[in-house]
Amino acid sequence: MFPSSTVCAISTPAGQGGIAVVRVSGSNAVTVCDRVFTGTKGTLSRQPSHTVSFGKIGSHTPDGSMKVIDEALVTVFRAPHSYTGEDTVEIACHGSLFIQQEILKLLLANGCRMAAAGEFTQRAYLNGKMDLCRAEAVGDLIASSSAAAHNIAIRQMRGDFSNLLAELRDRLLHFATLVELELDFSEEDVEFAERTQLTALAAQLESAISRLTDSFATGNAIKNGIPVAIVGETNTGKSTLLNRLLREDKAIVSDVHGTTRDSIEDTILIGGMLFRFIDTAGIRNTADRIEQLGIERTFRKIEQASIILRLIDLSNDPPTVDLKIRDDQHLIVALNKADLLSPDALAAKQTFYAAAQLDVITISAKSGTGISQLEEKLLAGIPQLGENDVIVSNMRHYEELHHALAAIRRVMQSLDEGVPEDLLAQDIRCCISHLGNITGQQIHSEEVLDNIFKNFCIGK
Amino acid sequence: MFPSSTVCAISTPAGQGGIAVVRVSGSNAVTVCDRVFTGTKGTLSRQPSHTVSFGKIGSHTPDGSMKVIDEALVTVFRAPHSYTGEDTVEIACHGSLFIQQEILKLLLANGCRMAAAGEFTQRAYLNGKMDLCRAEAVGDLIASSSAAAHNIAIRQMRGDFSNLLAELRDRLLHFATLVELELDFSEEDVEFAERTQLTALAAQLESAISRLTDSFATGNAIKNGIPVAIVGETNTGKSTLLNRLLREDKAIVSDVHGTTRDSIEDTILIGGMLFRFIDTAGIRNTADRIEQLGIERTFRKIEQASIILRLIDLSNDPPTVDLKIRDDQHLIVALNKADLLSPDALAAKQTFYAAAQLDVITISAKSGTGISQLEEKLLAGIPQLGENDVIVSNMRHYEELHHALAAIRRVMQSLDEGVPEDLLAQDIRCCISHLGNITGQQIHSEEVLDNIFKNFCIGK
Repeated sequence: MFPSSTVCAISTPAGQGGIAVVRVSGSNAVTVCDRVFTGTKGTLSRQPSHTVSFGKIGSHTPDGSMKVIDEALVTVFRAPHSYTGEDTVEIACHGSLFIQQEILKLLLANGCRMAAAGEFTQRAYLNGKMDLCRAEAVGDLIASSSAAAHNIAIRQMRGDFSNLLAELRDRLLHFATLVELELDFSEEDVEFAERTQLTALAAQLESAISRLTDSFATGNAIKNGIPVAIVGETNTGKSTLLNRLLREDKAIVSDVHGTTRDSIEDTILIGGMLFRFIDTAGIRNTADRIEQLGIERTFRKIEQASIILRLIDLSNDPPTVDLKIRDDQHLIVALNKADLLSPDALAAKQTFYAAAQLDVITISAKSGTGISQLEEKLLAGIPQLGENDVIVSNMRHYEELHHALAAIRRVMQSLDEGVPEDLLAQDIRCCISHLGNITGQQIHSEEVLDNIFKNFCIGK
Repeated sequence: MFPSSTVCAISTPAGQGGIAVVRVSGSNAVTVCDRVFTGTKGTLSRQPSHTVSFGKIGSHTPDGSMKVIDEALVTVFRAPHSYTGEDTVEIACHGSLFIQQEILKLLLANGCRMAAAGEFTQRAYLNGKMDLCRAEAVGDLIASSSAAAHNIAIRQMRGDFSNLLAELRDRLLHFATLVELELDFSEEDVEFAERTQLTALAAQLESAISRLTDSFATGNAIKNGIPVAIVGETNTGKSTLLNRLLREDKAIVSDVHGTTRDSIEDTILIGGMLFRFIDTAGIRNTADRIEQLGIERTFRKIEQASIILRLIDLSNDPPTVDLKIRDDQHLIVALNKADLLSPDALAAKQTFYAAAQLDVITISAKSGTGISQLEEKLLAGIPQLGENDVIVSNMRHYEELHHALAAIRRVMQSLDEGVPEDLLAQDIRCCISHLGNITGQQIHSEEVLDNIFKNFCIGK
């Protein structure tokens, strides 16, 4: 099960930079690196763990000299005190693409193989350095682009979720042991597990697990963007508003890492939260069949949104189309084009709409008036995380929790109906097993693991 | 002159990856990092140089706990044993853009400022860790995308060029001292510097410096791509050949770092050499004025090329347009569309062209026949570097050498004409000064330095 080969990969982002880091992990990591590195402090095999050596990296020529690829800083981490739990060497070289490529080639020629995506973290899991749930958090942490998604990943990596699961599982295990004891003594009809206590415990567990499954809607939205539908009649200023919101964000983003947002220009960071704006066609009552189809599609998109941002054109008549909003959706009504109205006309319109609606805000997408207040309303429209809330954001975890919830509900029903211990015990074990799958206590299938780590980046 | 502030920057390539490295350098580097890092081994100020600590990075909240941004590996390098020669801390964090940005913000809030492009290397120069010529080699090394450019940069960083310059300069300094001594005793008409020895020495220096300036053509071509003009009549298969050559290259490049070559698709790596293919319009004799203009432009482009790749369509009549090739240009004649001819017809054509041309090769751009031989001919067409050749590839160095060469030639003329010592001494000093500028022995102007380092990447 434990991989014996020594693997290598570039761990820093792809491209050219000041420095790049090539990571080597496995039982031969130090030996392989000693073949290609000549340090000023002597061989790497003589260096203590967590120390850095300066030297030349390259291949030895037959005459004993070295064909130098680069000068590098090389850090040695000795098992088990490394990320992977194996001997690990990190080579910090100059960040030219050519050098990165040549060092990889050199390591491959000296007995390493290329690491698969996420293989370093997978090894860390296999070597018992972290449970599966924490390992998955590493991937989420690297991918997180908002403060909120980062916050969820950090909590998960810190072990909040793992600890909660371990606690739930421990309580169930105790429960299971007692019921299975009854099975051993089934002919004597004893009852080790007090049924009323068991019923109370099952109810607590059901409540805790369903809180976790419920949190997935929030966790998933935080990770992939809170879905917001900007809905309005044609020409109410939806695009202008989106551009206005995007411009604010673009400034922040390009300031830091110069990325282009072309492909995801409907995702916007506001106050550390990622919002995913759902493009909708303008709505209005129409007899045109084609236009009706477009409007129906808009209504279906509205159903996917957590927040409905209803845009109304103040310079026009009040809208006649009624929106149906679910209880779990948050409605914000924004009165746009305030810039086109006189103060008196504006006040009259505001009074009119305020009477009919709960949450009304006056803006001008064109001039920017009211936009920061709108952003505050968007932020207020999402569930707030408590300091110690555990939020599930991973689809795999959600599915396991979903199965665990079904199992614990079957346990509750069995207790209620007084079904035989063997059926009861089976459902308890089923629930334990699904909870254990999340942290990986029972996962030994390579296929499952490869599936989990394949979305990681290479080098982590 | 020596900067007192502590600077920080992301040193790894821009983007998301497994890990990223934030570098902090300056007298307060360790103090600043201790404010934002809680390591398992205690404060960084207590850690020896070149050791790595694991811990949490984040900001301290008023209640004494930490708002954790990430878990990180932090390496301490103590002055003068660091890249910059100052206290330096390298923070290896998870490579999410969000984390990189948050750590930078945290460092800026705790007293660092953002490092300018190349500032770490500029500080290394100012702190005497490397001369200017070696510092510039770091930038070239990072930018080098071919084995040959990398080779030149590595030699320059190793100090081959610096050592040669130091030797030339030393010999001139000795020369200068003797001549200046004569000036002190000018009324006595003594001659400390033997004129015949001086003349011999000046000739040696002139020869060495002119070898260096001559090497710039090669060095520059290696760095920016050997210019190759593919010239041929219309429809001889120029584009097919370029695509054929590009496809080979694309496979190599995308294999390693997945970049797109859209913007530089006329640059091709062959055998570790970068070739820059110059786009030319098809040539033929024509009375059309507009077409003549295009063909004239092609001939002007041919003048810029080091290698002329003359493409001839075997399935057509022999070309009637004559190319004028300079002595310093290398001509390769490629007979294309071999796939369209019968073996007998092909043999006849080959005999015909071989009689008229020196360097003929038969290819089929379409089928790929002869392409690897063509690549060998391209490689053979460029000057070969000896193991110890010093090649100048930097325009600034070339300009200084150019001035030094002019000065030493004036010295030779003065010796020849027997001009007064003061004029002689002035030209010797001028030559010494220009040689010294290359390694930075006399450069203390911030403007000049900023100009040199501004093309570096941030973080190096």
